[in-house]
Amino acid sequence: MVTTTSVTADAVAEVRENLRDQAPLVHCLTNLVVANFTANALLAAGASPAMTDTPEDARVLAAGAGAVLVNLGTVTHASAEGMRASVTSAARAGRPWVLDPVAAGPLPWRTALAGDLLALAPPAVVRGNASEVLALTGGTGGRGVESTADPEQAWPAARSLAGTYALTVAVSGPVDLLTDGERTVRVANGHPLMTRVTGVGCVLGALTAGCLAVTEDALLAATAATVLLTLAGEAAAARAPLPGAFATALLDELDATDADRIRTGARLG
Amino acid sequence: MVTTTSVTADAVAEVRENLRDQAPLVHCLTNLVVANFTANALLAAGASPAMTDTPEDARVLAAGAGAVLVNLGTVTHASAEGMRASVTSAARAGRPWVLDPVAAGPLPWRTALAGDLLALAPPAVVRGNASEVLALTGGTGGRGVESTADPEQAWPAARSLAGTYALTVAVSGPVDLLTDGERTVRVANGHPLMTRVTGVGCVLGALTAGCLAVTEDALLAATAATVLLTLAGEAAAARAPLPGAFATALLDELDATDADRIRTGARLG
Amino acid sequence: MVTTTSVTADAVAEVRENLRDQAPLVHCLTNLVVANFTANALLAAGASPAMTDTPEDARVLAAGAGAVLVNLGTVTHASAEGMRASVTSAARAGRPWVLDPVAAGPLPWRTALAGDLLALAPPAVVRGNASEVLALTGGTGGRGVESTADPEQAWPAARSLAGTYALTVAVSGPVDLLTDGERTVRVANGHPLMTRVTGVGCVLGALTAGCLAVTEDALLAATAATVLLTLAGEAAAARAPLPGAFATALLDELDATDADRIRTGARLG
Repeated sequence: MVTTTSVTADAVAEVRENLRDQAPLVHCLTNLVVANFTANALLAAGASPAMTDTPEDARVLAAGAGAVLVNLGTVTHASAEGMRASVTSAARAGRPWVLDPVAAGPLPWRTALAGDLLALAPPAVVRGNASEVLALTGGTGGRGVESTADPEQAWPAARSLAGTYALTVAVSGPVDLLTDGERTVRVANGHPLMTRVTGVGCVLGALTAGCLAVTEDALLAATAATVLLTLAGEAAAARAPLPGAFATALLDELDATDADRIRTGARLG
Repeated sequence: MVTTTSVTADAVAEVRENLRDQAPLVHCLTNLVVANFTANALLAAGASPAMTDTPEDARVLAAGAGAVLVNLGTVTHASAEGMRASVTSAARAGRPWVLDPVAAGPLPWRTALAGDLLALAPPAVVRGNASEVLALTGGTGGRGVESTADPEQAWPAARSLAGTYALTVAVSGPVDLLTDGERTVRVANGHPLMTRVTGVGCVLGALTAGCLAVTEDALLAATAATVLLTLAGEAAAARAPLPGAFATALLDELDATDADRIRTGARLG
Repeated sequence: MVTTTSVTADAVAEVRENLRDQAPLVHCLTNLVVANFTANALLAAGASPAMTDTPEDARVLAAGAGAVLVNLGTVTHASAEGMRASVTSAARAGRPWVLDPVAAGPLPWRTALAGDLLALAPPAVVRGNASEVLALTGGTGGRGVESTADPEQAWPAARSLAGTYALTVAVSGPVDLLTDGERTVRVANGHPLMTRVTGVGCVLGALTAGCLAVTEDALLAATAATVLLTLAGEAAAARAPLPGAFATALLDELDATDADRIRTGARLG
């Protein structure tokens, strides 16, 4: 495990600035509900999104991207082939990838697919809600795309998953819980409006991929993405109390959230 | 036919509050143009969207959802299989579903698919514009996704369709016309800007599914969805005169439209 | 080659007004990331979008539309079949079509598809960034969806492509370069924020199709779309300095950009 930096607000702030300076290409194989919002969130944060799940193209993009996101939100038989191609290609090229196992648990077919992808080549980060993380270690639960459990309940599952595959697990919730099996970070930023807009969790997976492209420390990358998004959410909620305007403001604040805001606002534990 | 409530502004207001209180899971098999807007509209209104049209997953979601939406806007051969799976699964589990036969009429392939789905298991509500409703009873007309007829012209077709399949038909237009074959409701709310944003009609189908999850009276559910959306449209237009800002404001106002606004603003006839 | 009008600000202003007055149906086979934004942009500008890439439906829509857009952004094996069907159908019905070869160059599979479509029936306009236009004449380059070249570098390729297929090539960049092989136009409007929102280039392709439906002069149509979009971008940037609000404002300003704004603001060279 590469642990180049301790996970402090200063380290997070540096990742955020590197994301903007390096503008890495992030190849997203994601669901059609959030594709536009995800691309705009990456652009607002300073990264460069590319999206396709056709195997011929996905394989090429994955090899050239800074990192890859695989999100199972609306996975089909066709797009699953693209995911396998991208994961294989990313692994061969030494590119990190992020697995977001949306609605794993209640849906057996995609839960099995998540397991297949994990076995194909371990991702650098698994990002999900508590029910999804529990599902990857054999638990059940969840309702549609929502969690029926709290991040702290998923702590043993997260540690086990991190240990088995040598990866980082990021469990989102009111307080986000992140662990690489050795170190654990909690992020206490965020706002309830983030659950009133579709795809905010999916955006977190994409930003995590973006941060992985600029640091080798996966726990730091996942933490940086979480801090960036949740601080943007707080700033957006402060000026947009209803969900339509909040979604627009969230994109604005992904741009506006800089190293200074992170150093003063990050609530890491 | 279950007729538990008369269709009054008070009854509509109660459905709206139940939607927010119960936050039903609405499984949407919808078109990729409007998937994000639809999910955000359901969330803004207080419901919980889930979207996939892969048969293995769709079948599970449909059985567990409060209601199911099938919208033919960008239906493919692959997604049609998911629609058949969901409709069958919903029928078996006793869950209501809504058919939105987008662009039925000018497009023979999907018009035939709409007929197949109707025959597979009748939906609780068919929601469309006048051309689409006419097409389901053998009429032609329509241009792309637009109607070339007025809701009142579709009145005989709507009554016939309602009688044949024992369902509610909701025909949208400047004045919306809704009937379950016995009772008829007209909703005179709304604003022309609602036709300047893609997917507002599709959102109406999704909200109808949401309301069906909280009342057994399909005509009341369809009316409640129509009133909620058209009142939100009026409030949004009052503060956002151009279509970009209007779309954002519409989401805000789906949240802000509550029982009080409905009781004072609903124009039911 | 039909050259009915010289490409002046007055001629552009007339196309813009005709677009609003005639509200042509524009059939878009486009990528799922930008489908919603594209449909809303067409509606805001005054056109009427229709979107599907299922061959049975696409074939019918293409024959009845004012013009067709084919954008390769997330093309799949299935949607490529719809593209072939639409291009064939449009050509048979005498409808113009626009090719937007997104990420042609680095991605061999779709670069070959772009060549196949060009050979099937030449589009009226090819719209892309410099790397994409270079790729269509055998060049390489580009990173993901971004150009690694400047429009002026693509000038020989654009001229060659225009001559080979008797079409107009529109190369976007800080200064857009457009040529039909005989005439050349440069458009110096626009704003850097247009590169911070996903799909602005894709919208340009859709607006070009819209303008092609109301004028037979393809160079004029491509210029009118470029001027309309870039002036809207300038107006949006003047009131929305961050990318979330900018995207919303851009839709507003596509509506607000009228003949007067074009006559005073267009920077044609």
